[in-house]
Amino acid sequence: MNVLIVHAHPEPKSFSSALFREAVHQYRRQGHTVQVSDLYSMNFNPVASAADFSTPINSDYLNYALEQRHAMSEGTIAPDIAQEVDKVITAELILFNFPLYWFSVPAILKGWIDRVFVSGKFYGGKRIYTQGGMLGKKVLVSVTTGGRSDMLDEGGIHGDLTGILKPLLQGSLGYVGMEVYEPFYAFHVPYLKDEKRQRILDDWGNVLTNLEQRPILDMPDLEHFDDRFYPIQQ
Amino acid sequence: MNVLIVHAHPEPKSFSSALFREAVHQYRRQGHTVQVSDLYSMNFNPVASAADFSTPINSDYLNYALEQRHAMSEGTIAPDIAQEVDKVITAELILFNFPLYWFSVPAILKGWIDRVFVSGKFYGGKRIYTQGGMLGKKVLVSVTTGGRSDMLDEGGIHGDLTGILKPLLQGSLGYVGMEVYEPFYAFHVPYLKDEKRQRILDDWGNVLTNLEQRPILDMPDLEHFDDRFYPIQQ
Repeated sequence: MNVLIVHAHPEPKSFSSALFREAVHQYRRQGHTVQVSDLYSMNFNPVASAADFSTPINSDYLNYALEQRHAMSEGTIAPDIAQEVDKVITAELILFNFPLYWFSVPAILKGWIDRVFVSGKFYGGKRIYTQGGMLGKKVLVSVTTGGRSDMLDEGGIHGDLTGILKPLLQGSLGYVGMEVYEPFYAFHVPYLKDEKRQRILDDWGNVLTNLEQRPILDMPDLEHFDDRFYPIQQ
Repeated sequence: MNVLIVHAHPEPKSFSSALFREAVHQYRRQGHTVQVSDLYSMNFNPVASAADFSTPINSDYLNYALEQRHAMSEGTIAPDIAQEVDKVITAELILFNFPLYWFSVPAILKGWIDRVFVSGKFYGGKRIYTQGGMLGKKVLVSVTTGGRSDMLDEGGIHGDLTGILKPLLQGSLGYVGMEVYEPFYAFHVPYLKDEKRQRILDDWGNVLTNLEQRPILDMPDLEHFDDRFYPIQQ
């Protein structure tokens, strides 16, 4: 299997980075091909801009999605984007591992999505969700948080974390057609003792080993919408 | 009134940028003090990292929130962050204007929040939501989208946009104690004719003129939670 692991934490000694390394080691040990995008160590540029296109269709007005399509078809998109697009296309399983920053991904990872999930290849027109461009790929998101699990659950002060992560889980990964596993959460990380952290690392290892048993999140089914995305009365 | 307008679109001729300029002009015309953070034109760095702290407490292990507190108290936080923190602190009303990228803010704006909403000053311990560090400030979010309004509504293919934006509206702005107005949405923008765009610009002007009449979004009320954020049985 070809596995891509995308990681976004600025501190290599953090618990989040330990989860990242554990995943890399485990999949390598199992003989899989492991590609890595450690965004901080790559110094990845997260800002989508006109600089991503060396041969623009229109240098007077930036339409980012149109330029993505053009640059992809001409092979002129920025090399750092092209490299990441290739990694995604060759991967069968993708892991995203990051700390929760403001109920969301760190900016460096948001920008990876903004720039790498190129229009045309990943989605376009009616090619979204169950007809998205990345159908057949599976994806697992793992998140470390400062808050306790009860604070990030239904009825907790902030609400359910999986709902909070909808822009990533549904709006980005599901949108392009990936099958999204139920996320893996490590809560309250800064306050945990070493033995508890070790237990979470063990759980994480088990999750990775038995991934095919993990539930897949529901996504909008295009069968329930017409060609213009209006709901079909059932 | 002191107004800060934060804008994040890479194309100055875009409709999003027209909304931005309209807001700047209108508040200046009314005699308010207008501060501007046009993130693309500032080439704002959105990546939270150890480089933000010239005098770290611990140069061997980056705890971003702890270093924020230390650097703020020592006055040694990166100058580009310090400048934006000052803008927020002096502002009574803040506008965030951006295009929807992957059901969320563009990375350059996500990173502005990651770096500028510093621990201690903006939030900390029990100082969140109705006791957040930015109590008394009001904030309005304006968003342009490619999708139609019915696609981004309850029952639509993607679901309700205000719910999708929870990480920003509640998890960032409400979290630090700001009063968050009902957002302003301009849907389906790339497909609109000029007269429709002009009508939206007029609506936008009216919204800004009559802002005090606009509903405020509900946020978690700390009165309903104990000192450790467990819900109080009512």
